[in-house]
Amino acid sequence: MTDATEPAAGAANAGTDAAAGARRRRRGGGREAKPRPTGPNLAPWSLPRRLDRPTEPLSEEQVERIHDAAMRILEEIGVDFLNQDAVAELKRAGCVVEPDGFRVKMRREFVMEMVAKAPSEFTLTPRNPERCISIGGDHVVFTQVASPPNVSDLARGRRVGDQEAYRELLMLAQSFPCIHLHAGYPVEPVDVHSSIRHLDAMSDMLTLSDKVTHAYSLGSERIEDAMEMVRLAAGQTEEAFAERPHMFTNINSSSPLKHDWPMLDGAMRAVKRGQMVVVTPFTLSGAMAPVTLAGAIAQQTAEAVAGVALLQWIKPGAPMVYGAFTTNVDMKSGAPAFGTPEYMRAMQMSGQMARYYGLPLRASNTNAATALDMQSAWESVFSLWGVISAGANIVYHGAGWMEGGLVASMEKVVIDCELIQQVMRYLQPVSVEEADLALDAIREVGPNGHFLGCAHTQERYKTAFYSPFLSDWSNYEAWAQAGAVEAPQRAHKVYRELIDSFTAPPMPDEARGALEAFVARRKEEGGAPTDF
Amino acid sequence: MTDATEPAAGAANAGTDAAAGARRRRRGGGREAKPRPTGPNLAPWSLPRRLDRPTEPLSEEQVERIHDAAMRILEEIGVDFLNQDAVAELKRAGCVVEPDGFRVKMRREFVMEMVAKAPSEFTLTPRNPERCISIGGDHVVFTQVASPPNVSDLARGRRVGDQEAYRELLMLAQSFPCIHLHAGYPVEPVDVHSSIRHLDAMSDMLTLSDKVTHAYSLGSERIEDAMEMVRLAAGQTEEAFAERPHMFTNINSSSPLKHDWPMLDGAMRAVKRGQMVVVTPFTLSGAMAPVTLAGAIAQQTAEAVAGVALLQWIKPGAPMVYGAFTTNVDMKSGAPAFGTPEYMRAMQMSGQMARYYGLPLRASNTNAATALDMQSAWESVFSLWGVISAGANIVYHGAGWMEGGLVASMEKVVIDCELIQQVMRYLQPVSVEEADLALDAIREVGPNGHFLGCAHTQERYKTAFYSPFLSDWSNYEAWAQAGAVEAPQRAHKVYRELIDSFTAPPMPDEARGALEAFVARRKEEGGAPTDF
Repeated sequence: MTDATEPAAGAANAGTDAAAGARRRRRGGGREAKPRPTGPNLAPWSLPRRLDRPTEPLSEEQVERIHDAAMRILEEIGVDFLNQDAVAELKRAGCVVEPDGFRVKMRREFVMEMVAKAPSEFTLTPRNPERCISIGGDHVVFTQVASPPNVSDLARGRRVGDQEAYRELLMLAQSFPCIHLHAGYPVEPVDVHSSIRHLDAMSDMLTLSDKVTHAYSLGSERIEDAMEMVRLAAGQTEEAFAERPHMFTNINSSSPLKHDWPMLDGAMRAVKRGQMVVVTPFTLSGAMAPVTLAGAIAQQTAEAVAGVALLQWIKPGAPMVYGAFTTNVDMKSGAPAFGTPEYMRAMQMSGQMARYYGLPLRASNTNAATALDMQSAWESVFSLWGVISAGANIVYHGAGWMEGGLVASMEKVVIDCELIQQVMRYLQPVSVEEADLALDAIREVGPNGHFLGCAHTQERYKTAFYSPFLSDWSNYEAWAQAGAVEAPQRAHKVYRELIDSFTAPPMPDEARGALEAFVARRKEEGGAPTDF
Repeated sequence: MTDATEPAAGAANAGTDAAAGARRRRRGGGREAKPRPTGPNLAPWSLPRRLDRPTEPLSEEQVERIHDAAMRILEEIGVDFLNQDAVAELKRAGCVVEPDGFRVKMRREFVMEMVAKAPSEFTLTPRNPERCISIGGDHVVFTQVASPPNVSDLARGRRVGDQEAYRELLMLAQSFPCIHLHAGYPVEPVDVHSSIRHLDAMSDMLTLSDKVTHAYSLGSERIEDAMEMVRLAAGQTEEAFAERPHMFTNINSSSPLKHDWPMLDGAMRAVKRGQMVVVTPFTLSGAMAPVTLAGAIAQQTAEAVAGVALLQWIKPGAPMVYGAFTTNVDMKSGAPAFGTPEYMRAMQMSGQMARYYGLPLRASNTNAATALDMQSAWESVFSLWGVISAGANIVYHGAGWMEGGLVASMEKVVIDCELIQQVMRYLQPVSVEEADLALDAIREVGPNGHFLGCAHTQERYKTAFYSPFLSDWSNYEAWAQAGAVEAPQRAHKVYRELIDSFTAPPMPDEARGALEAFVARRKEEGGAPTDF
C-alpha cells in the first residue's frame, strides 16, 4: 500500500458511533469553528466507555474490612476540619466535635446516609455544550496535567512556568480531542502576580478552550471569581449556572486526617452553587498514610468520605467524586514513587471502594521520571493499566505530567495523548458478527493467498485498525535514513505544529465582553488576598 | 532514610512464600553454585500466579461464534498439512484428505475429542529441577527474546547476530531470575555454520543455563539432536526423559491455513518423546488473516487446534499450548504493528479461546520500535497489559525483543526484566488482615504526624514495596548532577555488570562429558542437512 492510503488511515480513527454522531451534529449545526489541525492526524472527540469488568484484587469481604476500618477511623479517631463553618455544619448534623474545636468524629450511620445522597453518574456541561461530558458509571474521561510549578520542552529546556507556557498548554489541551476537560492550571503561570493570577488564568482557560474547567479552592475570592467567570463565559444566568454542574474543584486533604480551611471553603462554595467537587486525599503510603496498602486505602477512604459526608449534608445530591492518589514512597529517599505495582493495586482497590459507596472514581496518569525516556513511558503505561482496570472515571494528569508532578512537559503532553488515544481505541468493543468472522474471505484466500487484496479487507482496511499519529513503524534502514528521530523529537514537532496552527474556539462577543469587564473590575478591586 | 536501607530494599523483593521456600531449599541443598550477581539487586526466582480474573472482551456467545467459525474452517475449507506422515495419520484418524494429498478437512467432533485429551496444566523440568516450571492454570512464566537475526547494544551498535552475542544473551537469561525458560535462540549465531549451529547453540544453552530449553523444528536431525542433548545434559535415561516434559518446541503455521513439513515433523517427534509443543499461527490481521479481529482469531484458532488435534491423535495427553501471535499490520505499509490496541484485544480473545479448549496460552511481549525510546516502552507495556490481562501462561519474547523481532537488544533485555519484575510484583496478592489495616498506627500518628517513623512502618518498610533495580527516582537536580543518565544507559551498565560477573551453573562432569562427546560425534558426522 502506498501513501494514497494516508487519508484513509485518518478515517481509521473514526471511533465510536457516538463520536460519529458528534461529528455529524457539528457539521449540521455549523458550530465547529476551529479547523482540524493541519498537522497530526488526531482521533475525533468521543466519550469512551469501559465495557470490561474492572480488575478487583479485593474480595467482597476485604472491601467490607477496609470500609469498616475507614468507619472506625471516622468514629474512633476522627478527622480535623480546619474550618469553623464546616465544623459548625457537622455539629449541627450531630457529629461529635472534640474540645479543640477541629477534630470531628462521625458515626458510620451518618456517613453512609450522606454518601448515599451523592449521585453515581452525572454530566458536566461547559460553555460549548458539545463538549459536555459524563462522569461516573462506565464513562472514562481524561484531563491534561494539572498544577506543576515547572514546564519543559526540548527547545527551551526546563524552567519555571509562565503565562506563555500556560497558554501553550491550554492550546494543546484544546487541540487534542482526547483531552476531555481541564484539571487545574497545566502549569503555574508564576509571572502573573498571585493576587490576580486566577483572573488571568481563568480568562485564558475560558477563551482558549471550550472544555470543562476546574477552579482552585485557594481562598473564597478565587473560587467565587472562577465560578462567576465560568458563568459569564457561558452567558448564563445565576439560576442556569446553578441548575447543573459546569465546572469543578478538586480538594486534597492534608493527610493524615486533616481537611484544610481553603479546600473546605472552596468545596462548600462549589456545591452550594451546584458544581462538582473531587475529594482527593494525599495518602502516600509509608509517609502520610500506613506503609500497608490496606491501611493506606482505609485512611484514604476515611478522608474522602468525610469530605463527601460534609458536602452532602450541606447540599444533598451534590455531584462528587472519590479521588484516589495513594501510591508508595521510595523507602530509600522518602520521595513518592509513581506507576509502581503498588500504585496499580492501590487504584484498583480504590475503584472497589468508590463503587462500594456509589461514587465516581478519580485516578491519575503518573510517573516519577526526570527524562523523556523509557522509564517515563513504562511508568505512564503501568499507571494507565492500573487506572483503566480500576474503572477510573476521571483520569487526572492524563497528559504531560513528569517528575511526580513537578514539571509539565510539552512533548509528554503529545506522547500521553498518543497513549490515551490508544487506550480509547482499546476501550471500543470488538465486533463478532457473521461478516466479522470472515469465512468467505478465508475461503476465497485459501492456503496460498494473501488477505491484503481481498474484498473483505478492501471494504474495511480504512477503519479496521487504530492509526497512531506518533509511532514510527518504519524499518530500521528507513528510520535511520530519515535521521533516526526518536519519540520525544517527533512529539516536539507535533507540539509546534499544534501551537502554530491553533485557532481559539469561538465565543460570542457578549460573553467575551462580560468576561473582560469582570476581570477588569476585579483587578481594579485588587484581585484576591495573597495571605490566605 | 539513608543508604543504610539499601540492603533492606533488596529484601523488599523477597516475593512470594513459594520464592522464599525455593531460597531455603537452595541454601539447604547446597545446589546453588552461581553466586547472586554483585551488581543489580534482582528479585529472586519465583513462580508467579495470576489471581485476577482475566479481561474478557467476548461474551460466551461470541466465544461460541468464533469456535463455530474455526470449526467451519476446519470442516469446510480445510488446512494444508505439507507432511505426508501427518497426512497419513490424519487419514487413519478418519479425516478427509483432498485429492492434492495435502488439504485435510476435520470434523469438529474429531477435533474436540482430540483437544480434550490435552492437559490444561503440567510441568517442565530442566536439568536443574529447582528451575522446574508449571505451564497452564493460573501460572505465568516469562521467556527471553527468541530468534532475531540481529543484535544490538549501545557500545557495539546494531549488527548481525554471532555466537558471542548469543552467549551473552544466554548469560543474561540465566542471570535474571524473572526469566523462567528459554524460547529459541535469543539471537541467531550466524557465524556458526548452519549444519552444526544447533549443536553449538544447544551446547551453549545447556551449559550456560540450567533453565528449561527450546529446540527448533527445522529438520528431523536438529530436533532429535536437541532432545538428545537435553537428555544427556540432565544425565537421564531415554525412559526418564520421555516420562515427563523437559523442553519444548514452538511451531508456527504458515498462515493462512498451512502447516509446513519441518514444523510438523519436529512437533510429531517432540510429542512422541513426551515433550511440549506450542502451536502458534502467524495470523497477522490484514495480511495472513482477515482484517477483522474476530476473523483473525477464528483462523488462528482453526490453525492452532488443527495442530493440536493431529498431535493428540499421535500422542494422547501430550503437553501442548495454544500459541497466539495475532496482531494487526500497518495498513499504510503492510508491516506488522505490535503492542497496539488490536494486539491487546487479540490476546484477550485468544485467552478466552484457549480456556474454551482447556489449553494453556502462549502470548508475547512485543514492540515495533527501532530505538530504545518511549515508543518501545509504551508498546512493550501495552503488550504486557494485553497478555497478562489475557491470562497468558507463557509470555514469549519477554525480554529483549525490538523492531518486531528483527533485533535482540542487550539493554532491552535488562529493561524488560525490570518491567517483568514489576509485573510479577503486581501479580502478588494484597494482604488485608487486621494488622494491615493499621488502625493503631493511624491512631498513633494522628492528624499532625508522619508514618515514616512509626513502629508499624519500621516493622514493614523493608518488604512493603517493590524496589526497582533500574528506575531513577532521584529529583531533577540530583539526576542532572549525576550526569542525566537515561534508562537505556543505566540498562547498559547492568548488562555489562551481569556479563562480567557471570558464573555458569554447575554441571556434573559425566553429563558434560556425554554432551561434549555427542556434539563431537555429530559434528564428525557432518551435523544436519542444510537443504531442508
